[in-house]
Amino acid sequence: MAFNFKIIKRGKNTQARLGVITTSHGSFHTPAFIPVATAASIRALDFNDLKNLGAEVVLANTYHLHLRPGEKLINKFGGLHKFMGWDGPIVTDSGGFQVFSLGFGVEHNIGKMGWFPNEGERARKDSDFPQNKDNQKPEISREKKFAHVDGNGVSFIDPMTGKKVLLTPKISMQIQSDLGADIIFAFDECTSPLHDEVYTKDSLERTHRWAKESLKHYNKKQALFGIVQGGLFKNLRQESAKFIGGLPFAGFGIGGPLGGSKKDMENILDWTIPLLPRNKPVHMLGIGAVEDLFNCVEKGADMFDCAAPTKWARRGHLYISPQAGGTRINKFRINIDNAKFREDRKPIDPYCQCPTCRAYSRAYLRHLFTAKEISYFRLASIHNLHFMLELMRELRESISNNSFLKLKSVWLSIKI
Amino acid sequence: MAFNFKIIKRGKNTQARLGVITTSHGSFHTPAFIPVATAASIRALDFNDLKNLGAEVVLANTYHLHLRPGEKLINKFGGLHKFMGWDGPIVTDSGGFQVFSLGFGVEHNIGKMGWFPNEGERARKDSDFPQNKDNQKPEISREKKFAHVDGNGVSFIDPMTGKKVLLTPKISMQIQSDLGADIIFAFDECTSPLHDEVYTKDSLERTHRWAKESLKHYNKKQALFGIVQGGLFKNLRQESAKFIGGLPFAGFGIGGPLGGSKKDMENILDWTIPLLPRNKPVHMLGIGAVEDLFNCVEKGADMFDCAAPTKWARRGHLYISPQAGGTRINKFRINIDNAKFREDRKPIDPYCQCPTCRAYSRAYLRHLFTAKEISYFRLASIHNLHFMLELMRELRESISNNSFLKLKSVWLSIKI
Repeated sequence: MAFNFKIIKRGKNTQARLGVITTSHGSFHTPAFIPVATAASIRALDFNDLKNLGAEVVLANTYHLHLRPGEKLINKFGGLHKFMGWDGPIVTDSGGFQVFSLGFGVEHNIGKMGWFPNEGERARKDSDFPQNKDNQKPEISREKKFAHVDGNGVSFIDPMTGKKVLLTPKISMQIQSDLGADIIFAFDECTSPLHDEVYTKDSLERTHRWAKESLKHYNKKQALFGIVQGGLFKNLRQESAKFIGGLPFAGFGIGGPLGGSKKDMENILDWTIPLLPRNKPVHMLGIGAVEDLFNCVEKGADMFDCAAPTKWARRGHLYISPQAGGTRINKFRINIDNAKFREDRKPIDPYCQCPTCRAYSRAYLRHLFTAKEISYFRLASIHNLHFMLELMRELRESISNNSFLKLKSVWLSIKI
Repeated sequence: MAFNFKIIKRGKNTQARLGVITTSHGSFHTPAFIPVATAASIRALDFNDLKNLGAEVVLANTYHLHLRPGEKLINKFGGLHKFMGWDGPIVTDSGGFQVFSLGFGVEHNIGKMGWFPNEGERARKDSDFPQNKDNQKPEISREKKFAHVDGNGVSFIDPMTGKKVLLTPKISMQIQSDLGADIIFAFDECTSPLHDEVYTKDSLERTHRWAKESLKHYNKKQALFGIVQGGLFKNLRQESAKFIGGLPFAGFGIGGPLGGSKKDMENILDWTIPLLPRNKPVHMLGIGAVEDLFNCVEKGADMFDCAAPTKWARRGHLYISPQAGGTRINKFRINIDNAKFREDRKPIDPYCQCPTCRAYSRAYLRHLFTAKEISYFRLASIHNLHFMLELMRELRESISNNSFLKLKSVWLSIKI
């Protein structure tokens, strides 16, 4: 296994830390934001764009690639790196979250941002995502789930073909071996905040059993990360951190609160990170909001993946820094669809140095968005990803300079 | 008026010629293929892509920009160059063709490729475009046209707002002045092959009257091209070439056969070009098929614009050169949707040096196309535009080397 995590510096008065992860496809700096190439493509971008943005690592989704084009095809090409033309480090998830999306995610009306794969590219309003508002619990939906869990794994219906598909720890490891990523994840079951303690405990036992099975079946050339689950229950999260932390994983993922509040997320970090071996990296699964990044880094997380920057971009929501008016209230975003930008000559963020901001005005981007021009999606995604990657660079610099808490206070407008 | 057309070399045994057109925004070489930025964007690309492809000039559509975002907004930004971020030469059409699309184009079931603006981005099969097959006349459709012509101009219903819009020569000149392109076109009426001689003659009289009105009202800082029409009638085309050729235009557009055959197009060129002043450039409106480019250049045309390369790209049809198996029969295209490309490691065209062919396999592009990944549209459009621009470079070189007919014989597999 070509995998090394080197901690370069620890933060002052925080759990934040600066590190470098080295794989056989090169290194990346932590804390790292990892752009998501769901189906072997960062949506609307090509990998040359990503290199130009300074991204060092990408995450692809096992579930999507298993269904289309299939891991066997990708393996014939020598794996994901060669198939999609990205020679840097690659992470794959285990398929567990997508299976949750198809299962209780449907029944409990939860998706990280309230949508499901392949639902098309129509711009929607914030109000379409009620579950995205803090402290508002999702409600049970009348839609029927189409994934079913048993002790051995999860069976679900492929929404595109209607065929039954089975995922187990062994199958997930086999798929991820064929895909050939540098860092892979154990197969787990996500739970929702609507699950009671009995179900969550039951599910956690499965996740722990599956963690051991994943360890047994994974390709030893890859670095396998275990996943800590346990819903919003302190005792279960602690139990999970101890159990998973005690297994010989290369690093640890922590399942997010999935529909829970920001406070729920902070609790999860407080309960789990102190119980994990601190010489190994911690990956927050599916986390990518500005405020969350600050809080998670402060509490000791090293890696983040999230499709939100490109998803928001496609829906017209473009990130702005505090200098340009970004706050926790507006979630550091403007909605380019707003008529007030019709004649706005400024770039999205006047302080941004991304290729989009250097070349185009808000008025032009709004025109492209309104006219549904395909070019909009790429220009907007370039900006939002640049914003995230740049934020992480600033954040790493602040750890290096012992100014992390100051940077956080500026961004989140809070007193230190 | 900053406009100059310099003929550098005339072809041997053909009417082909090599030239340079100079505007206040720089020069471009002729024969030139001009990519179409319909709504101030080359669909799926940004202008940086276009520069990297070596494009020297672009064409934008007056009709689309008038409706959205409106020429007044663009003018506030200092015109199209500044609004869309392209500092090279720009051409705008007059709106005549789009008005035809909404009018008799609907009734006669004709669009250049059988579709209409903003109909979405779904891939379609060749068989969806029966009128695209040679020598097959379009049939009268039961759909009602929504543009109406009278002596003064054309009124039509904006399909997006339902509001009535009026275009006249004076209004078209005013819009094109606000847009601020380097080369603009006189307002004309297109006719279809289903129009009889009586209607076509009537229409031609309007087009001629509108040509004189366009000359009266245009912004004298721009270079105005007149348009030769006359349907498929030799006498009318000749009359039009003489009339339009006798007016003080900077160059001439020739309306294509619009649903007619390749033979119809060759006839039109034979009837008109010899009657036009040969010291001025000739622009073939909406022409962009490989075979047509060879025939039109041979007969003396200098400029071509067509949205086909990017439209075909979006629908999965990717150009290949003769070395890679491109012929008149397959129209120099492969359909990337075809299952035979599922495991194909070759680039689209192994002899192509475009960024897409240098980085990606047919299998990967087919995966992106099948998965409806937005990135596909850009990668495919880059290839198809590169192909067209490269073909024009080869074509210009062949005129320079006196090998045009040889090049044509290789591409079209015909004996010299």
